[in-house]
Order: sequence, then C-alpha cells, then structure tokens
Amino acid sequence: MLLSVLQANASVLDVDANLRTIEDAARRAAQAGAAILLTPELFPVGYAPLRIQAELDPQTLPAIRQRLADIARTHGIGLVYSLPAPAQEVHDDAARPTPAGDRWHISATLLDATGEEVLHYNKVHLFGGDEHKAFVGAQEPPAVVVFNGIRTSMLICYDVEFPEAVRAAASRGAELLLVPTALSAGFDNVPQVLIRARALESQLNVAYANHCGHEDIYNFLGGSVVAGPDGSLLASAGDGPALLFAEVGTDTVKAARAEVPYLKERRPDLYAKWEL
Amino acid sequence: MLLSVLQANASVLDVDANLRTIEDAARRAAQAGAAILLTPELFPVGYAPLRIQAELDPQTLPAIRQRLADIARTHGIGLVYSLPAPAQEVHDDAARPTPAGDRWHISATLLDATGEEVLHYNKVHLFGGDEHKAFVGAQEPPAVVVFNGIRTSMLICYDVEFPEAVRAAASRGAELLLVPTALSAGFDNVPQVLIRARALESQLNVAYANHCGHEDIYNFLGGSVVAGPDGSLLASAGDGPALLFAEVGTDTVKAARAEVPYLKERRPDLYAKWEL
Repeated sequence: MLLSVLQANASVLDVDANLRTIEDAARRAAQAGAAILLTPELFPVGYAPLRIQAELDPQTLPAIRQRLADIARTHGIGLVYSLPAPAQEVHDDAARPTPAGDRWHISATLLDATGEEVLHYNKVHLFGGDEHKAFVGAQEPPAVVVFNGIRTSMLICYDVEFPEAVRAAASRGAELLLVPTALSAGFDNVPQVLIRARALESQLNVAYANHCGHEDIYNFLGGSVVAGPDGSLLASAGDGPALLFAEVGTDTVKAARAEVPYLKERRPDLYAKWEL
Repeated sequence: MLLSVLQANASVLDVDANLRTIEDAARRAAQAGAAILLTPELFPVGYAPLRIQAELDPQTLPAIRQRLADIARTHGIGLVYSLPAPAQEVHDDAARPTPAGDRWHISATLLDATGEEVLHYNKVHLFGGDEHKAFVGAQEPPAVVVFNGIRTSMLICYDVEFPEAVRAAASRGAELLLVPTALSAGFDNVPQVLIRARALESQLNVAYANHCGHEDIYNFLGGSVVAGPDGSLLASAGDGPALLFAEVGTDTVKAARAEVPYLKERRPDLYAKWEL
C-alpha cells in the first residue's frame, strides 16, 4: 500500500484554509496512487490548545468532520485527521465516572476511501501545561482495524514516545501505526531515534506526520518520517512543507518478526511483577 | 565520572588470554582517569554458549572471579564483567521452585575499585537457540547501587532491546545502565537506534560493550556505544578493537527529566489494564 504523509503549516482557527491544504494534499496523494493520507495533530483547527479551548465553537465540529469525509470520498483516498472530540466521561476513579462537562479529548479518526469512519482514537498522554489545561487525557488503548489488508492502529504525538503505548497497539496485532503529531523544533531525536526505535522494537511500520513553521506560540520541527519494522527510515521530511510517500505492507513486518521474535519473547508476567 | 568501555575479540575458553585483554584495558583506562571499565558479555570465557556448556568446568569460575577482582584492585578501577553463574532455583512456577541442577544464568558483576562485588545481575531475556540450550533465563529485575555517586544498574545484551527492562532499572532510580553484550554483525540498528532510544525514553546514560571479530560460530558487530539521557551518542566504536571513554554524570539526567517528564508521565496503571 502506498502511504502518504502531509507535513504542513496550519492557520490557527482558519478551518477553510486548513481544509484546503488537506484537500490539495489528498488530490495529489490520490493522483500518485496513495491509498491513504496521514495529516498532523489538530491540523484542521491548527495546534493552539488554549485558543481552541477559548475560541472554537464545539457545534462546528460535526460539519468539519463532514467536510473531511467529503474530501476522502471525492478523491477516493483513506484519510487520518485529528480534531478535538467531546470527552463524555472522565474515569478518574473507575468506580465513579464523573461527567466531563465541556472537556475535550484530542482525537484521531481514520476514514476509508468512501469517507466512512473505520477507526477512532483519543490521546492518552497529554504533553505540557497547555494541553493539560485545554484537554483531558483518555484511558483506552489504541484499537486495530484492517485497512487495505494491513492491521492498522493510531496514536497521537506524545503517546508514541512511550514504548508502552506502541506495545499496546502491537499486541493487538498492529502492522501499521499512524501518528498525527505536533512536535516542536529542537526535538529532532524524537523522529530520528524514538520513532525508528518504536518501529524496530515492536516490528511495525510507523508513520509520523508533523506540522512545520509557526502556529500560535509554537515553532514546529517538521521532520515527519515513515519508519519500517527493521528500524529503517522509509521516508523523511525536512523543516518545510512536504508530502511524503512510502510503500508499507505486511511482508516486512512478518520478516522482522520471524528474524527476532521480540513480541513473543516479551515477559509481561515479569514486567507486571517488576512495577513498583 | 569517566567511564571506559572495552570492545575486543575474545578467545573461546582461553581464559588467560581474555583476562590479559581485560587487564591491559583496565591498566590503560585507569591511567586515563576512568573510574570504571565495562567489558562484553561472557568475555572472560568467550561467547560460545554450547562450548561453554560442554567444556567449561564450573569449579574454575570462583578462581576466574578472584583474578578479575585482583585486576580491579591492582589498577584501582571499577569493573563490570560477565560470566556464567549457577542458577540455584528456576521458578517456572512461583509456587513450586524446582532445582536447576547444573544449569547456568548469564550474569554480570560490578566490582568497585577495591575488587569488592557491589552489584550482580542475571540475564532475563535469552537470545536464540544456543543460549536457550546452554543457559536458563532469570526472573529478577535489575537492581540499582550507588557507584561513585551515580545510581547504577546493569542489563545484558538482548535484555536492553526490551524497553520494559530499562524501565525496570529507571523506575528503581538508575542514572547509568551498564550493558555487556554479544551482538552479531548486521544488527547495526541495535546500538545506533535502540540503545539511543533506551537512553532517551528512560533518560539515563547507557553504555553498551560488544565483542568484535569472530568467536566460535559467531561474527560480532563491534559498534559499542555510550548514549546520554538526551539520546545523543557520547562515544561510538567501529568494527575493530577499541577502548571508548565517555564522561557520564547525573546533571544531564536531571536536566533531561526536568525538560520532558517521561518517567513521571508514564501510566503504569493503564498499561497493566491494557495487557491482553
């Protein structure tokens, strides 16, 4: 499957401009033969947690989702987008779920080429003070769906820096992990070291789509990557706008897992005992 | 603290030759001001699991350990060495410990500069068919000891490829992880990607000492490294014999953990629920 990854600069709360950027990428990606386009974290609204919380009218979200579904269907391409999503309940205490009020998760949605939603994920690990003020972390592990014959899962940004989160996807069978992100400049080792390590240690393909340039108070790294299950870089962007392409499949996953059986040779029984 | 790492070729079951190699490195490292010398997995006996099992007389091991203690004391330098160690009990079932008979762990021992043993570790994750035939995997997590003011722990080879094992050391306070290894040629991404990722994601220093050249049926990569808690390479060897030096301390650990609080923001409560 040919995968495409959008790296771009979003305009904060200028949804029309951001959807034009996504649609332009979807058109080019589909023309190039890509079956799916991965876009960065919160790209349709721009990455600006406090402004999103203060200024985004939640009632506009269903229409934005509909326009994204239209883009997928119009261009006949799968699409991963990231938006705020209502947090129905916050299970701070499993025994006493409490209403979240007007609080929001950061979510990712996978649409198929007809615009149907086939997978949803809510970010578990929030990064930094602004995200913690504006959003609430989720508690559910990443789910897996078969997309074009490839078992596919999603995480968001900071989540993927935790090997445990990728293990949760891999142990559910994931062969491809799609990660919208918003990573600041200066953190080059995240895509260049951690993402390659996540792919290698859990033996799956990882695609990581970042913003570039300035949005709100943030300055983004760019540096989007696609890593294969042997830890190699299949594609890598610089610090400006880019549309990456990489061929991802299941053969390399099977070969890596046959060569070194990391997932079979994990010892979760011991790791559980070792937790302090 | 100045750390030194020996990368060398061992002669299988020629203990005299291998101890000469270690002593020569200890002398040079001490003269250069290093407080500790890390040596590769099973280096005093050579890496040859089936030949060790068939040909090594276990009764010779205490004398080998004594000679290694003499090297540390003579040169006034801390020393990490790796040898077979008797597996007293194998807890295949926690309720019914069974005698291990003549089975062996692969172990690592940290001596201080007076030759006193201050830390011991038995390898948990055995690699490949030969190791599984010749040795038995241990079940205890890595412990931590304060060595020259730095909280220090050990893993062995394949162990460190599992992020969970490094988490166990980091959650016990490790700031420096010393890893004897025997990594085959072709696995360059282990030191270049995984070791850097382990250092970055658990924010500690990792030193990884490998064999080079051929021993028994094995062809080793070399490629020993020391990685800092920001994922940077502090030192890196080629494919031939080398004595690496790197300055490791606690300030860079504290700075990394202050910048991105990975260890505090882990969610072990969720990860435990997520295990299948």
